[in-house]
Amino acid sequence: MIYFRSDYSQGAHPKVMAALEATNFEHTDGYAIDRHCERAAEMIKAIIGRPDASVHMMIGGTPCNVTVIAAALRPYETVIAARSGHCYFHETGGVEATGHRVTTVEPSDGKVTPEGIDFAMSEFQDEHTPKPAMVYVSQPTEIGTVYSKAELGALRAKCDEYGLMLYLDGARLAAALTCKSNDLTIWDIANLTDAFYIGGTKCGALFGEALVILNPKIDDHFRWMIKRQGGMLAKGRLIGVQFEALLEGGEDSLYFEIGRSENKMADRIRSALTGLGIEFFGSSPTNQVFPILPAKVVKELERDFFFYEWAQESDGMIPVRLVTGWGTTDEDVEALITRIKELI
Amino acid sequence: MIYFRSDYSQGAHPKVMAALEATNFEHTDGYAIDRHCERAAEMIKAIIGRPDASVHMMIGGTPCNVTVIAAALRPYETVIAARSGHCYFHETGGVEATGHRVTTVEPSDGKVTPEGIDFAMSEFQDEHTPKPAMVYVSQPTEIGTVYSKAELGALRAKCDEYGLMLYLDGARLAAALTCKSNDLTIWDIANLTDAFYIGGTKCGALFGEALVILNPKIDDHFRWMIKRQGGMLAKGRLIGVQFEALLEGGEDSLYFEIGRSENKMADRIRSALTGLGIEFFGSSPTNQVFPILPAKVVKELERDFFFYEWAQESDGMIPVRLVTGWGTTDEDVEALITRIKELI
Amino acid sequence: MIYFRSDYSQGAHPKVMAALEATNFEHTDGYAIDRHCERAAEMIKAIIGRPDASVHMMIGGTPCNVTVIAAALRPYETVIAARSGHCYFHETGGVEATGHRVTTVEPSDGKVTPEGIDFAMSEFQDEHTPKPAMVYVSQPTEIGTVYSKAELGALRAKCDEYGLMLYLDGARLAAALTCKSNDLTIWDIANLTDAFYIGGTKCGALFGEALVILNPKIDDHFRWMIKRQGGMLAKGRLIGVQFEALLEGGEDSLYFEIGRSENKMADRIRSALTGLGIEFFGSSPTNQVFPILPAKVVKELERDFFFYEWAQESDGMIPVRLVTGWGTTDEDVEALITRIKELI
Amino acid sequence: MIYFRSDYSQGAHPKVMAALEATNFEHTDGYAIDRHCERAAEMIKAIIGRPDASVHMMIGGTPCNVTVIAAALRPYETVIAARSGHCYFHETGGVEATGHRVTTVEPSDGKVTPEGIDFAMSEFQDEHTPKPAMVYVSQPTEIGTVYSKAELGALRAKCDEYGLMLYLDGARLAAALTCKSNDLTIWDIANLTDAFYIGGTKCGALFGEALVILNPKIDDHFRWMIKRQGGMLAKGRLIGVQFEALLEGGEDSLYFEIGRSENKMADRIRSALTGLGIEFFGSSPTNQVFPILPAKVVKELERDFFFYEWAQESDGMIPVRLVTGWGTTDEDVEALITRIKELI
Repeated sequence: MIYFRSDYSQGAHPKVMAALEATNFEHTDGYAIDRHCERAAEMIKAIIGRPDASVHMMIGGTPCNVTVIAAALRPYETVIAARSGHCYFHETGGVEATGHRVTTVEPSDGKVTPEGIDFAMSEFQDEHTPKPAMVYVSQPTEIGTVYSKAELGALRAKCDEYGLMLYLDGARLAAALTCKSNDLTIWDIANLTDAFYIGGTKCGALFGEALVILNPKIDDHFRWMIKRQGGMLAKGRLIGVQFEALLEGGEDSLYFEIGRSENKMADRIRSALTGLGIEFFGSSPTNQVFPILPAKVVKELERDFFFYEWAQESDGMIPVRLVTGWGTTDEDVEALITRIKELI
Repeated sequence: MIYFRSDYSQGAHPKVMAALEATNFEHTDGYAIDRHCERAAEMIKAIIGRPDASVHMMIGGTPCNVTVIAAALRPYETVIAARSGHCYFHETGGVEATGHRVTTVEPSDGKVTPEGIDFAMSEFQDEHTPKPAMVYVSQPTEIGTVYSKAELGALRAKCDEYGLMLYLDGARLAAALTCKSNDLTIWDIANLTDAFYIGGTKCGALFGEALVILNPKIDDHFRWMIKRQGGMLAKGRLIGVQFEALLEGGEDSLYFEIGRSENKMADRIRSALTGLGIEFFGSSPTNQVFPILPAKVVKELERDFFFYEWAQESDGMIPVRLVTGWGTTDEDVEALITRIKELI
Repeated sequence: MIYFRSDYSQGAHPKVMAALEATNFEHTDGYAIDRHCERAAEMIKAIIGRPDASVHMMIGGTPCNVTVIAAALRPYETVIAARSGHCYFHETGGVEATGHRVTTVEPSDGKVTPEGIDFAMSEFQDEHTPKPAMVYVSQPTEIGTVYSKAELGALRAKCDEYGLMLYLDGARLAAALTCKSNDLTIWDIANLTDAFYIGGTKCGALFGEALVILNPKIDDHFRWMIKRQGGMLAKGRLIGVQFEALLEGGEDSLYFEIGRSENKMADRIRSALTGLGIEFFGSSPTNQVFPILPAKVVKELERDFFFYEWAQESDGMIPVRLVTGWGTTDEDVEALITRIKELI
Repeated sequence: MIYFRSDYSQGAHPKVMAALEATNFEHTDGYAIDRHCERAAEMIKAIIGRPDASVHMMIGGTPCNVTVIAAALRPYETVIAARSGHCYFHETGGVEATGHRVTTVEPSDGKVTPEGIDFAMSEFQDEHTPKPAMVYVSQPTEIGTVYSKAELGALRAKCDEYGLMLYLDGARLAAALTCKSNDLTIWDIANLTDAFYIGGTKCGALFGEALVILNPKIDDHFRWMIKRQGGMLAKGRLIGVQFEALLEGGEDSLYFEIGRSENKMADRIRSALTGLGIEFFGSSPTNQVFPILPAKVVKELERDFFFYEWAQESDGMIPVRLVTGWGTTDEDVEALITRIKELI
């Protein structure tokens, strides 16, 4: 069975594992107050050019999203997100569990639009309606698409118009930053958002995300918020150690190398399938590929390959999701393309 | 200034006030454990033909909705509602404040449809998505429309298909039960839902709603839930006394009389405006009338009449909401119609 | 059966009912934005000498406490209260339902002490422990005792030392302000606390409390908080009308008259029982009397009088609670004293 | 600097790291549905002799406690814990963040007593007070003490008397199970509790705890609860792999070996300090040692050793906490003892 199931089906990139091995016998204080977390934070501040940022080592994407939103909002406030956005759709009500409504808008190619924000604001009236306070986006989106610099700039302008914060979920940020069509740098993100996170779990780490808070209001007693939300890791240094390994070297670092490798593998699949006349769901340029395949091809393919059916069969066709990870090999990709060619 | 602003702009119907006066010096125990609440509950069980029902005297509509939903759902569960539904749109995140997502669906003429429920269920996948457990509807809806017996029956069937509970918000139930086109009796409601409430605030009471729970699962330690949610009134008997006054006589009672009077006034307005070629937003047959008027007519009308603009001006027209209450008089209605005729 | 059960066993004082009657046919806008609520607020600001205060008409004591605490605290913060304090002991976890711990301290004669605050602060360490942000007290306390001006001043000083807010629950404030031993005026309270409420329900109103917020931080979007917590009354003016009736005339108003009458009745009971050598639980000088009576006297008394047993029998004795209300008469008190004399 | 700061100051036991290395390139499905988690669960069910148990791989102790409590309790219910209990004292209100009060009782030598439960139940009255539903204990306790089989049996009997569930936090279970005075086996725990967890983080793992649910009521849709509370790890197999490594061999496994080693080191410290006439805070027989040392000794010791001061100085003495971990060496212990001998 060859996995195109997700970018978290293997352990950590070998260089990340090596860093954990190398530091395993060290003694440090707990809860992410240690030299490794501190150094990883300094590296991140240098990479984004924001020495004023506050960096927190988070245990995973959902606790990161939920904790940021719970810290940023007053009880009567709501966060705007795409209906397909992770914090609404795929976190089992984690945000609502902290007492906040997520106000959904219809996405366009997976993305929140300025018009969507206008719509959400048009529903805000007075003390009978929750007050929007933040916009949640992810880069790349749930369907692998990426915001251009102009698009994120337009969202920032719209947020400023309404006094909203802008938060960016970077679970797969390595893939976004290194895909061919991307023009949005990590510097841009750091200057256009109030907070964002640099995803580790789906970009070569065992687990862990590096949260970057630019707006001090969100940072108020943030370590209390992490603990309250259950996201404080006793051996917190593990996240610091991994981000040191991932980010050493800045744009030449392992983190960017992993993104490039994932995208290269995905591009090969996209290119081959396009050549076969196959259509796609959305316009992902990153490590998630969403071909729409004949149902019987899908069923045959599932004998040897493990992946998600993205939606139900319709008119004999099924959209599927193929994801490449740090460990996806040329051989894996070749086998997949060959098999699809046989089946089409 | 003549009010068509809401059905809660005056105090209580004089007969309700008289009942409060008549019982004012009585001593009873607090928190709705007293002879009046008990008698009102018995009257309601007789009216709906369900001696097994559990009846609770609630302080208002929002606490009623929120407490029912919080009592009925497990933490990981969600309630399905129209995007325009009160529990989603107009309660400032009260449901989310108890930790539950409201899953919205697009309404048709203000109503939840079986297709809407299918759509919401299609979004439910596994442990990463909140599990739908209940459907919330209101009768009449936010725009005054009413579910027919067939429509509510179809929702019940759809709920049964998916194992969902069905809850009906009856804030303006008097108007729904007595409007000309209605074929859905209170017996039907009691047999098609898991819980519903008989609204008092907007139907002649000073305040208070009578919650009827048919599904014992929702009723578990419900008084604890009321207290936890801040909805337990010290002088709880006040609600019982009012419902005794409203419901004495069953279908000939003051409650139904108020509904008929409100609808009669609204029908006269609708009829006169229809005669003037005015169009309406939605098809309300109850005490809320939603004419779409030229903006300059609206502005002139606002000099003498107090009402809501329901949406923003579009193409020179503004949809407005005109509501009749227990105290709306022939003279009020005549004045309104006359003035609109002058302005059109 | 004669009631000494509570000060909420009857309806409203006749003058309050008269005010509700007199205004019943008026039309006003809803949700406590109307001339009566506005006027009541102005009256209160004049009485307390704080034109800068923000006044909100609240539906009851528990929603008042819970909404203030939820509005004042950040998610990781906790409120300090006596273990016997209403917001911890008697609100079924209403504060915790908004996500906040109540940190309890042992009371002295029902009161929070500066030493208690020191103890609570000694338990606060770092991000692993909730951060105390507010102290909750009630005047009078759950056992009817009152803080002197010096005592409340000492709590204020202690709060200032630690950067804590001070909130005072005045459910029975009329009784506290008018009891013989009181030296703490409503002016003092308004200058020593960050927020407090003037109780209506237990002081002659049908229901309703007037919340006074002195600290603007707590007042941020407070009407959103009221709605979110389910405490916004549609016919909000009802609370304004009642407080107009209660407070007209300032210190000569009905509110103070009711307090004096309740205390006078309670003092007569206390005096008579003291004369019989009966001991008391706590040192209440207000409208709650806590004699410790022989169990068999209690059981006999319960044939004709309705009251709470305050704790379980111990050594043949039972502490009971006798409460006087606005409608307690000389005859009621005489009958009680006579019967106890017969039984002792 | 030699660390006696905590049992989470180093990475994982080398055998655990080796297991992570050995499985690093494997592809598995995410979210703890994989062969390793499945096998670890089977091993645990065999060790405890309860094939009917449900086992969940949890990311940490606080998410484990909070998720169990939130899953087990209805909204109006409360959990009873020692005031020093981790879920009350050291989780920054994590339980309250899910809407539940923690009802505290005074511990005896760190332990909840049957009398404590009686006290908590005596405070439960009616719908105005939260209903106790569960008792939380930890083995060992916060101060390292252990419940005997008779003591845990007595708590179970008391829980049964009141219809309460019993939950045991086993963050340091390895140390408890292997200390000299222990007579409470893991079989006993599995038969006396409704749920408990086998701690990994503080017993040799990088992170992760294995939650064992014996009462099916708690297990309802538990994976939904894990996700909602933010505790679902994408690469969930990491926890399974670690517990396979820790538990292979049952009572001869690495888990028990680590416990024995930690206790042996702690016993040497205790024995040496006892010989010096030093007194202790509590009677811990496990890997936490709480000597009460002269303040000046503490300050000198802190030059070379890193540990917690457990409480503030009193009469010139400071109670400190010394913790041994899987990596604590004979040399570390020898150095500590030698230095204390010099300083005393």
